[in-house]
Amino acid sequence: MSGAALSNLRIDTARLGADLAALAEITEPGRPWTRRAFTPKFLEGRAWLEGRMQAAGLTTRIDAAGNLIGRLAGKTSGAGVLMVGSHSDTVPDGGRFDGIAGVLAGLEIARAVQDQGITFAHDLEIVDFLAEEVSIFGVSCVGSRGLSGQLPEDWLSRIADGRDLKAAIAEAGGAIEEATPRADVKGFLELHIEQGPVLEAEGLPIGVVTAIAGITRVLVTVAGRPDHAGTTPMNARQDALIPAAELVLAIRAKADALAAGPGHFTATVGEFRMEPNAANVVPARVEMLIDARASERADMEAFLDWLGTEGARHGAEVKVLSDNPPKPSHPAVCDLLEAAAEKLGAGHRRMVSGAGHDAAWMGRIAPTAMVFVPCAGGRSHCPEEWAETGDIALGAAVMLETLIEMDRLVPVIA
Amino acid sequence: MSGAALSNLRIDTARLGADLAALAEITEPGRPWTRRAFTPKFLEGRAWLEGRMQAAGLTTRIDAAGNLIGRLAGKTSGAGVLMVGSHSDTVPDGGRFDGIAGVLAGLEIARAVQDQGITFAHDLEIVDFLAEEVSIFGVSCVGSRGLSGQLPEDWLSRIADGRDLKAAIAEAGGAIEEATPRADVKGFLELHIEQGPVLEAEGLPIGVVTAIAGITRVLVTVAGRPDHAGTTPMNARQDALIPAAELVLAIRAKADALAAGPGHFTATVGEFRMEPNAANVVPARVEMLIDARASERADMEAFLDWLGTEGARHGAEVKVLSDNPPKPSHPAVCDLLEAAAEKLGAGHRRMVSGAGHDAAWMGRIAPTAMVFVPCAGGRSHCPEEWAETGDIALGAAVMLETLIEMDRLVPVIA
Repeated sequence: MSGAALSNLRIDTARLGADLAALAEITEPGRPWTRRAFTPKFLEGRAWLEGRMQAAGLTTRIDAAGNLIGRLAGKTSGAGVLMVGSHSDTVPDGGRFDGIAGVLAGLEIARAVQDQGITFAHDLEIVDFLAEEVSIFGVSCVGSRGLSGQLPEDWLSRIADGRDLKAAIAEAGGAIEEATPRADVKGFLELHIEQGPVLEAEGLPIGVVTAIAGITRVLVTVAGRPDHAGTTPMNARQDALIPAAELVLAIRAKADALAAGPGHFTATVGEFRMEPNAANVVPARVEMLIDARASERADMEAFLDWLGTEGARHGAEVKVLSDNPPKPSHPAVCDLLEAAAEKLGAGHRRMVSGAGHDAAWMGRIAPTAMVFVPCAGGRSHCPEEWAETGDIALGAAVMLETLIEMDRLVPVIA
Repeated sequence: MSGAALSNLRIDTARLGADLAALAEITEPGRPWTRRAFTPKFLEGRAWLEGRMQAAGLTTRIDAAGNLIGRLAGKTSGAGVLMVGSHSDTVPDGGRFDGIAGVLAGLEIARAVQDQGITFAHDLEIVDFLAEEVSIFGVSCVGSRGLSGQLPEDWLSRIADGRDLKAAIAEAGGAIEEATPRADVKGFLELHIEQGPVLEAEGLPIGVVTAIAGITRVLVTVAGRPDHAGTTPMNARQDALIPAAELVLAIRAKADALAAGPGHFTATVGEFRMEPNAANVVPARVEMLIDARASERADMEAFLDWLGTEGARHGAEVKVLSDNPPKPSHPAVCDLLEAAAEKLGAGHRRMVSGAGHDAAWMGRIAPTAMVFVPCAGGRSHCPEEWAETGDIALGAAVMLETLIEMDRLVPVIA
């Protein structure tokens, strides 16, 4: 990290650190760090954040999709918007930095711009997307899907805590029935903690995210027969756990092989349920939920082909539950981020995000890329989640440098 | 099965079949076949059974441990008791024959004895043991443990449905504080469905049970690290499911090898729990409960030694939760059962019970053995559980023949 470069760009690490600490304090009592979307605690965090935006000279509003937006008007009316942000909601018991770092980095950028007397041609908007994490409604990225016109209509009637999602968005200040896809966003940047161990292990403060991996979920079901575990001879049983265990090991070996290639690939048997799950009964049924992620669509297709064959060989039923393709970042924006990191003397690498982000949805409506910063031990979604303020500040500086270039390069049609 | 031999012994298959059908009718509505211990439905079944015992000329009582006993006095006062029976309680949703067949075979024997004008020197007692199945109190074989002086004191304070086990035994007519181990029982026989596929597969109506396998329960715990499933590279994760799956397969291979030896051996991973069991988190912990059963103690010791080493090799914690030795039947009683089957022309084999039974506890206080009869598909503890009345009648005939010999051979000290 280059302190000299930072001070040149007037990213104020101490001010950013104070904001990170202050927002962390707004948490459910006894459950650090919890501020789930659609709860009073979340709205308390939002109110604090809106106050900080206003103190930074931004004009705030809640948009139709329930996103909090702070705006710094550009020189050229109608030129369009450069947007920076992430989300301030958390998972239960985790997340001082996941999302929050990106929102507060955006806020610090808006302050730094004014401190330096820079005026963009474009408007600059700092966004706190609503409900990026899986919320009590069982879905994620509500705000970024809503802002980009990709929120499924049928989600709005999902019920949690006695009201539907539409009403919950209204409680947050939105009016989802009035949402239309934003056509004025000319570029989007998101800073996020890596949620993985690579940057820390390689001693690099900056990751330029070239793609968000596609996520495919597959349900594998193995059937057996629930015989008495004491009286059924070993050679007369159909134990569902045996082919299930063989499949677990085969899936791991296949994932290892695909991960050794040039693309990012993971496959995880994250859920495993056995029936009847009784000590004295031979397992009759195993359900396994596989989470597979690939930056290269060809890798995912190879995996799914293989899994169909391998599953059949083990008598298993293989059912794809959801299948989302990878979302490449905008190549020119990646180039700008890389050049900015280089200029600031920040160690950097290109990498793929294995996790989903609001940026995946924003990429459909605007040139988009992400900056990753290291997190301790690669841990996230847990109370121990930690990132260094200096790394977040450096990431903000890289984004500020990039925004200056984007403002210059993105055509302004007044 | 030998109809001629049966009719000579006056075991009345039709009368036995009618009893089996009548008791099956006493079931929780809509849940065939359910008559769990300590429920009103169980007491309703008991009342019917007591009536049938009295109609058969037996003197009935509930003993201190809550067992229903029907007595036919012998010639020689104080000579002691030959006892026959099993249990009339069921698991939820299962059991028209498990236990019931043994109680009603005993009742039919008592009737046949009188029909033939036989009078034993010993008293003959037909017993319906209380709560053989795991009941709402979470423990099993309450009545046979109580009668034989092996009911753990601390079980009595277990609570279910608002009262302790002691009070529940009292509701069934017992007075457990007055129970003392029976010293007058000179022999015990139990007929039971096999609960396994062996007799059916070999086309044999009679199994002479030479031992009840010892049951050992082992908890195996594997720890990993709950990393993000999308962002943690395959080569940087500690996935607890991988060593767990390897252990499942190794345990199966070891059990197959031990089962190929002369003794009965099974090992089953019947319970399998994963944490956090979330689609997008690498498995952090797996708990596996192993149910291992052996007729030969040496096999169990070999298995436990191997499991300790193999578990350690996979970084697993291996903890023996309970470890009960096998209970051999009385060799002379097995010989008598075998001779009786031979005399009646009934196909038979010696075999081991992989399941626990009241006979395991009775074997501590009296010469004991069991007769198995086939059950369809080896299935038990399910609504489809089925045994042929003719096989149960043949088993009763074998036991009656054996009781006649036991009455002659067992010393009578008046």
